[in-house]
Amino acid sequence: MTIEEYKQILRMRLKPDRYEHSLCVADEAKRLALKYGGDADKCYLAGLLHDITKNSPREEHLQLFSDFGIILSSVESNAIKLWHAMSGTLFVEHKLGITDKEILTAIRYHTTARASMTLTDKILYLADFTSADRDYDDVDVMRGLVDESLEAALRYALSYSIVDLINKGKPIHPDTLEAYNEICL
Amino acid sequence: MTIEEYKQILRMRLKPDRYEHSLCVADEAKRLALKYGGDADKCYLAGLLHDITKNSPREEHLQLFSDFGIILSSVESNAIKLWHAMSGTLFVEHKLGITDKEILTAIRYHTTARASMTLTDKILYLADFTSADRDYDDVDVMRGLVDESLEAALRYALSYSIVDLINKGKPIHPDTLEAYNEICL
Repeated sequence: MTIEEYKQILRMRLKPDRYEHSLCVADEAKRLALKYGGDADKCYLAGLLHDITKNSPREEHLQLFSDFGIILSSVESNAIKLWHAMSGTLFVEHKLGITDKEILTAIRYHTTARASMTLTDKILYLADFTSADRDYDDVDVMRGLVDESLEAALRYALSYSIVDLINKGKPIHPDTLEAYNEICL
Repeated sequence: MTIEEYKQILRMRLKPDRYEHSLCVADEAKRLALKYGGDADKCYLAGLLHDITKNSPREEHLQLFSDFGIILSSVESNAIKLWHAMSGTLFVEHKLGITDKEILTAIRYHTTARASMTLTDKILYLADFTSADRDYDDVDVMRGLVDESLEAALRYALSYSIVDLINKGKPIHPDTLEAYNEICL
């Protein structure tokens, strides 16, 4: 499938602002890959497709989980925001036929992060924080850090995410904790 | 063994301020037990003994772990502050001969907390935050909350601890995350 064909599918599946965000994350992921020695094509494609089920109805996520034997943990069941990373990976693998593990795991962990992230995992996770469309407190700090060091940016992003979830009284996925702890040790 | 005998052992093992802290936590744990329907004697004793290895040299902790087959996780290996909760439990069980599980688990989890805490676990964990000798930012908020609701105080204390660790760039024990997540779900 060509990039133009993927974009066509995304335009059908996503709201306009989410489609624009996907393009921005793809561009930022490619930029970071070129800067840090990653695979620019894979990072671009992972960025393009990372939110492919973000606007899907609850039923589509659940159907994908059911079709491919995914059992949600209690934290996952209660955090619908986490579903699109799991269902998106299933969609990309089983509906679009992408088998590249680097692309699949980068999409799978783009929301929670995880311990032992690959370079592609880190690039997608951070590109989602620093893409051109992003606007939140600290986005300038994040953009500065991501151009200095992936590790420093990752530490900041994980710390920021955990504190943000706590301020909102929301649960924290164990994968996020493991990613954070790994950086501290 | 009588309370006076336990105090004598503590006076030998602890620095004066740590001994005073132990007496204060014991008093606070007893007060909370009486307020919330816990076992006042067990809570008092757990409070009295909770820091029994806090001033121990590194070697004593490691000897206890070795003698009783405790293998530290990577987070635990790198956070010496967590050791006294584990070594203290072993000391209380195997050197003082206390077999009461409520007392032992309260001491075991008084630093990290855990999911599915017992009433005694919660009382000791919180008494350690609100004892008369404590002085830190937010201690007044904590003291107010602990007199309103154990659950509200627990949520606040866990959130406070996680954010404090992140601000210090320190790892967070998975038991603490599980305790926090359980309260959010």
